[in-house]
Amino acid sequence: MTGKLITIEGGEGAGKSTVIAGLRAAIEARGHEVVLTREPGGTPVGEAIRALLLDPAHALAAETELLLMFAARAQLVRELIRPALARGAFVVSDRFTDASFAYQGGGRGIDMGRIAELERWAAGIKPDLTFLLDLGVEQGLARARSRGGEPDRIEREHNGFFERVRAAYRARAAAEPQRFRVIDAGQPAEAVVAAVRAALEDWMETLA
Amino acid sequence: MTGKLITIEGGEGAGKSTVIAGLRAAIEARGHEVVLTREPGGTPVGEAIRALLLDPAHALAAETELLLMFAARAQLVRELIRPALARGAFVVSDRFTDASFAYQGGGRGIDMGRIAELERWAAGIKPDLTFLLDLGVEQGLARARSRGGEPDRIEREHNGFFERVRAAYRARAAAEPQRFRVIDAGQPAEAVVAAVRAALEDWMETLA
Repeated sequence: MTGKLITIEGGEGAGKSTVIAGLRAAIEARGHEVVLTREPGGTPVGEAIRALLLDPAHALAAETELLLMFAARAQLVRELIRPALARGAFVVSDRFTDASFAYQGGGRGIDMGRIAELERWAAGIKPDLTFLLDLGVEQGLARARSRGGEPDRIEREHNGFFERVRAAYRARAAAEPQRFRVIDAGQPAEAVVAAVRAALEDWMETLA
Repeated sequence: MTGKLITIEGGEGAGKSTVIAGLRAAIEARGHEVVLTREPGGTPVGEAIRALLLDPAHALAAETELLLMFAARAQLVRELIRPALARGAFVVSDRFTDASFAYQGGGRGIDMGRIAELERWAAGIKPDLTFLLDLGVEQGLARARSRGGEPDRIEREHNGFFERVRAAYRARAAAEPQRFRVIDAGQPAEAVVAAVRAALEDWMETLA
């Protein structure tokens, strides 16, 4: 069989890392290879691009930000994701193209059609299953801030930006209910992980 | 008045630097501000992207290369070129979008329509005048190698790649004769500079 691409999406402080660890354990328990990656990044040049994108010293135009995101994504698909899928692995990515629709489309106001066009040829693949960890903006930012550390270039945005990001994510999930599982990330972490695992198990039954 | 964008295109060893110095002197002699820039690069993030693009350690997918070129270009247009044109300056750029059609389109085989689409929204402007310094591939590479130093990631390509780059440049010049001036870069350097200056003077007369 060929592998599957599972992506985890959500705003700041939604608990993606905990969920990813739970997904990995659940998929490995079924005997599949799991490859974890993240966006932007996941390859040597992609991680270098990530550093440019998150550096608060850069005042990037919205178009520059979008093109850097897709440059890293084009490399990630060709260098890591496609080879892993070809050997039957499950690839679990911390964000993927939906994040460009949410952050650069919803957040920055770039035309969604341009992003869809880049998705077609620069990414060239869509996830098989996407978990949207949905959380109120205030609650997410409070959680992210409680971690400490300096906020990166995108974390420095105002609440209105993150509200638009959340709305764009929810609109995408509503438009593709077969691919998306929307998880209430305001629950305690154990309940979030349990909800994700239950949805994963149901979905994997459909693959058999 | 608003300013003008003049671009210099050509393969390896075509003598772009010498020509740019001559152009600057000629335009300044007419009392105009001249802003010199280069691609990829010309802004802080653009120069960081240039370093990624030229690093021989990176094995970039063709799509990644194209998107990085346009990311740097999107920033250059918004941060440097448009403000300079708005105050009436002449911007002289060592390469611009024609180079993406030549290198990523001709050289790497990326669909020209995709590049044209990026030109429309990511660059958003076209040069007013473009000099193509045309030179045989063997002669250009011999010149570039005689400069010494380690070849960068693109300079390491084989001759067939550079033949396709040259053919794409010449096809673009043939398709847009009003914008392009094709200069025989196989002449001695003084003759090349004189030919460029003469063509520039003729063109500037048409602006008055």
